[in-house]
Amino acid sequence: MIVEMRKGAARESVDGVVARAKSLGLGVQLNLGTDKTVVALLGSNTGQLSPDLFAVLPEVESVTRIMKPYKLAAREFKPFPTVVKSANVEIGGRKLVVMAGPCAVESEAQLFEAARIVKKAGATVLRGGAYKPRTSPFSFQGLEKTGLELLAKAKTEFGMPVISEVVDPRDVENISESVDILQIGARNMQNYALLTAVGRQKKPVLLKRGLSSTIDEWLTAADYLLAGGNDQVILCERGIRTYETSTRFSLDISAIPVIKRFSHLPVVVDPSHAAGHYALVPAMAKAAVAAGADGLLIEVHPNPKEALVDGLQSLTPSDFSRLMEELRAVAAAVGREI
Amino acid sequence: MIVEMRKGAARESVDGVVARAKSLGLGVQLNLGTDKTVVALLGSNTGQLSPDLFAVLPEVESVTRIMKPYKLAAREFKPFPTVVKSANVEIGGRKLVVMAGPCAVESEAQLFEAARIVKKAGATVLRGGAYKPRTSPFSFQGLEKTGLELLAKAKTEFGMPVISEVVDPRDVENISESVDILQIGARNMQNYALLTAVGRQKKPVLLKRGLSSTIDEWLTAADYLLAGGNDQVILCERGIRTYETSTRFSLDISAIPVIKRFSHLPVVVDPSHAAGHYALVPAMAKAAVAAGADGLLIEVHPNPKEALVDGLQSLTPSDFSRLMEELRAVAAAVGREI
Amino acid sequence: MIVEMRKGAARESVDGVVARAKSLGLGVQLNLGTDKTVVALLGSNTGQLSPDLFAVLPEVESVTRIMKPYKLAAREFKPFPTVVKSANVEIGGRKLVVMAGPCAVESEAQLFEAARIVKKAGATVLRGGAYKPRTSPFSFQGLEKTGLELLAKAKTEFGMPVISEVVDPRDVENISESVDILQIGARNMQNYALLTAVGRQKKPVLLKRGLSSTIDEWLTAADYLLAGGNDQVILCERGIRTYETSTRFSLDISAIPVIKRFSHLPVVVDPSHAAGHYALVPAMAKAAVAAGADGLLIEVHPNPKEALVDGLQSLTPSDFSRLMEELRAVAAAVGREI
Amino acid sequence: MIVEMRKGAARESVDGVVARAKSLGLGVQLNLGTDKTVVALLGSNTGQLSPDLFAVLPEVESVTRIMKPYKLAAREFKPFPTVVKSANVEIGGRKLVVMAGPCAVESEAQLFEAARIVKKAGATVLRGGAYKPRTSPFSFQGLEKTGLELLAKAKTEFGMPVISEVVDPRDVENISESVDILQIGARNMQNYALLTAVGRQKKPVLLKRGLSSTIDEWLTAADYLLAGGNDQVILCERGIRTYETSTRFSLDISAIPVIKRFSHLPVVVDPSHAAGHYALVPAMAKAAVAAGADGLLIEVHPNPKEALVDGLQSLTPSDFSRLMEELRAVAAAVGREI
Repeated sequence: MIVEMRKGAARESVDGVVARAKSLGLGVQLNLGTDKTVVALLGSNTGQLSPDLFAVLPEVESVTRIMKPYKLAAREFKPFPTVVKSANVEIGGRKLVVMAGPCAVESEAQLFEAARIVKKAGATVLRGGAYKPRTSPFSFQGLEKTGLELLAKAKTEFGMPVISEVVDPRDVENISESVDILQIGARNMQNYALLTAVGRQKKPVLLKRGLSSTIDEWLTAADYLLAGGNDQVILCERGIRTYETSTRFSLDISAIPVIKRFSHLPVVVDPSHAAGHYALVPAMAKAAVAAGADGLLIEVHPNPKEALVDGLQSLTPSDFSRLMEELRAVAAAVGREI
Repeated sequence: MIVEMRKGAARESVDGVVARAKSLGLGVQLNLGTDKTVVALLGSNTGQLSPDLFAVLPEVESVTRIMKPYKLAAREFKPFPTVVKSANVEIGGRKLVVMAGPCAVESEAQLFEAARIVKKAGATVLRGGAYKPRTSPFSFQGLEKTGLELLAKAKTEFGMPVISEVVDPRDVENISESVDILQIGARNMQNYALLTAVGRQKKPVLLKRGLSSTIDEWLTAADYLLAGGNDQVILCERGIRTYETSTRFSLDISAIPVIKRFSHLPVVVDPSHAAGHYALVPAMAKAAVAAGADGLLIEVHPNPKEALVDGLQSLTPSDFSRLMEELRAVAAAVGREI
Repeated sequence: MIVEMRKGAARESVDGVVARAKSLGLGVQLNLGTDKTVVALLGSNTGQLSPDLFAVLPEVESVTRIMKPYKLAAREFKPFPTVVKSANVEIGGRKLVVMAGPCAVESEAQLFEAARIVKKAGATVLRGGAYKPRTSPFSFQGLEKTGLELLAKAKTEFGMPVISEVVDPRDVENISESVDILQIGARNMQNYALLTAVGRQKKPVLLKRGLSSTIDEWLTAADYLLAGGNDQVILCERGIRTYETSTRFSLDISAIPVIKRFSHLPVVVDPSHAAGHYALVPAMAKAAVAAGADGLLIEVHPNPKEALVDGLQSLTPSDFSRLMEELRAVAAAVGREI
Repeated sequence: MIVEMRKGAARESVDGVVARAKSLGLGVQLNLGTDKTVVALLGSNTGQLSPDLFAVLPEVESVTRIMKPYKLAAREFKPFPTVVKSANVEIGGRKLVVMAGPCAVESEAQLFEAARIVKKAGATVLRGGAYKPRTSPFSFQGLEKTGLELLAKAKTEFGMPVISEVVDPRDVENISESVDILQIGARNMQNYALLTAVGRQKKPVLLKRGLSSTIDEWLTAADYLLAGGNDQVILCERGIRTYETSTRFSLDISAIPVIKRFSHLPVVVDPSHAAGHYALVPAMAKAAVAAGADGLLIEVHPNPKEALVDGLQSLTPSDFSRLMEELRAVAAAVGREI
């Protein structure tokens, strides 16, 4: 952390900064320049300290944090990539994971049909929402418990791990028993009560990036899960909020190489929610694989025209099969496989 | 809702749109133009229907929702302004409310000292956080139950209603018993499990705008509270996320007249979190009052230099007293009082 | 500038940083920590140096610029506020300036009628566009030379300075002869050819903030004008681009106190372009005055329903008169006058 | 265009909308609903009309433009993809174009060395800036005329078309004589004086997307070039401004499929300016090709550590050669070649 004093700051003000640093156990390096005094604060945990602790002191002009705010999710903390395992599926290895299925579980017929389709095309994890966070209280909120039961049934029937979203800390235990991977949605990325509860159970967790979260905030949210003892964390880029309106969100493709540079956690991409429109999904999915993503989360519906939720961004079975073929070629081009 | 068909769309595709509209109980008005067919869908609940229901149909080019997505929070639903009441304090009337106090409750001494200061300067509600949503799991998370007890004590001691944040649906009952106004923070604005739980209790609720929520989404979140039966809802603008870095967030001052135009709910402004720096708070607070806000939520700390959380954005007692004087003048200039 | 080396960086890499610093005439302060080496670079012009000069060197982890990128616009360069003068009007003093008039000059009748109205209500500068930057080549582009002539005529007739936009460096001389204040629009804030040409003439310049410019970039653009020798620069906040769609742009009200803190230049606010809708203009104008703006730029049209450009954001004569009354009260409340 | 009247609007207000529509030559379709009157305006040029023309009329609640604001750049205007030609290079065909070279021309030695490197690795167009738009007036502004002469010399020496930026309408003729493709930078995307001047000359133009421009605004800016008679327009996505700070800009990868859907113009990607850091460029370049871009614009410097401008985002010769190999594989995977 670098503390810059105001031009002509009094010696006592500089001393105030030094005293606070020492009280926090930090080392101090002082530069009494001719123009401005600059104080460098040294220590292994300066990333977790608030810059405000120094910015409030008299005659401080600015405080700059150099260390990252996250700790357990950092590559410096764990230099080797994390590979998450669920049944026979590995996420973060050479082989890419494709998690596919409907946005919401609607019925056994719909879920099983979707499972059959995505499994045949090569997906290895089945997705399906039982608890749906909806912007309006008047919209369909998911089948809830019935949905969970159907997912558990589909898992046995098709021999694929299933992933489903958890929205309430009171449901964590229940959902953790029924599904293989717990998903935390974008709107809950900074729901710390939920993160804490999910971090305490042992199933792998997929943590979606918040709608307007920086990558630093996202990895700091992952710290909540990791600090709880759960080291099976998958990150999921799903588009960020910008001024552009031709897509529902703007897929931040550069998040992939940035995550790979600063974190050991695997990262997958959800092109469906970012696009908001099926016609854009294939290009975005291929881009994600080319950029180095460890997998994809894709919405597929047996009949998108009849979907209860997010039909417009769901691929049809034939579009999904074609996309999987294309993805295999792109994966091979970047030294991966599907 | 307006459905625009692709140029040269087949008659069956148009019929498909009409059939779906009828199955949803909507009226239909058809324009078979020479160039493009446009279908207007009519009904009182088209704001709550997803445009995707039509956008997925064959040969549909675009779907435009004309009605607002929220319902209960709309001025059309309730033409007269809502005035929220807590003890002898009214929010949304001619008199402005100033809610002030420390970001976090740290001790009885700190809270009581803050209460004494803000009451003397003219604030009518005491704020103080017992449960703090913090970006890092390694930061101070609030005094929790002890904090609640101190708030309840301060309330009796100073005869002021207290407001405090709730972050977990499991705490709603408990907090509702201890404090007078429940606050839902920006990061939980779309935490529907929490909104639902809070909407079921009877104390007034202050709903902060999400970091990157549109005004439409904010009012739709308010619908969750209103749909639960709680009509004592206060909105709080606290800055939105933009690319600008000289302030922590960008205070969206225009949200005030927009809310006044489209909703019956009162709206207050939190200049402290938007600014992130005490030096900017007075200008922003005065702007909020001039723009028509119904009140302010301001962080004040007996000694900001020693604050455990957000000291940099807290006003000192003397700065707060001076600001209250200035606010009285601005309020009078726009026909209000403090 | 602070250069942080990678963990375990070789001594030669640190030497490389030091050597480059010395070649640029910078002082160097070295901290060979146990964990990471941090190099502080010292000098009076580090704000104008690109951090990339150091970031490209081997084993550099990050480079943080502490000094601001602008120089001539900084309060440190000139500690007293700049007061811009045009005829008998001062901008940046105790008295606020209100510049009002139509978006585009349409005819003598329209311009003169607008001038009469705004003068009577208390505006002291007449605005009117002769050259209009329009997003589509198929839209009305302004009366151009005829518009300039009408502005010059109105100026004589009503004894008010006039302000008008310049969009092409080839027009600078011409426009500078006809009008009193040259306006540079938001879309041209980083049109350096235009800034350079305008900086060389002597009439005052109003520099609008770019649609997505940071305050630092805005003040650095002002440096182009100041470096050309023109010290009569007025800044104009006109809303920034965000994800919110209920207003055309989001007025960044906090820009006012930020500018006052870091720059000596006067700052005015254009609520009309930010809002995009007349109904929101009064609240935003009052907020701007309460926040400390030195004036306003407001669109007024004798008959907005017939305006060729931006009629929706123009005030009617009676709305403008009423607003001026309200603004007088708010100005008085913050120790200013209109 | 759809005009929605306020609930209970008077018949005269509806008549006012109809009268204005007719005066503009538009067809009108009226729905006198029980709740709200909706007026559909029909005509082939409603995309170019401002919605404000109707929004200002009495009792109008909202106006929704359904047609796109651009015309000549639209796929509806020209159903077949445009292929731009410069010497023996085609942009927009099956073969991808790679334009590479230094950010700024610094000397003959530097430019020729860069040309040799990029040609050998497979690039077919040489890039190099002679006129540099710099945020600070105190930064290196390019070699200007000398730079142009060096580009012309390199073109002859290496037999490659060259691309360079134009920043001033007064330089268009001169630059058009020296280089093969004129580049309009992001900060000048809405510099209409420049667009108009460049649209009148005949060399191909590369139009970068503005820092915060929507895709609609970008295509409307292209209309300025096309309306001037120049149909050789290449679009270039180079990252948009968002709140994320780990990259200089956020590459909007979805812009590629969106452009392909709505426009006939070819689109290339500049990963260098979006990333701001060489380490991220390869992943972003591969993503662009996988998403369907028609080519890339990449900064390569013989010795990035000594670059005068943007060294941090420039690839070294060996990094560029390796990337070209990787790009060939990705291009083949999506049915293209380099």
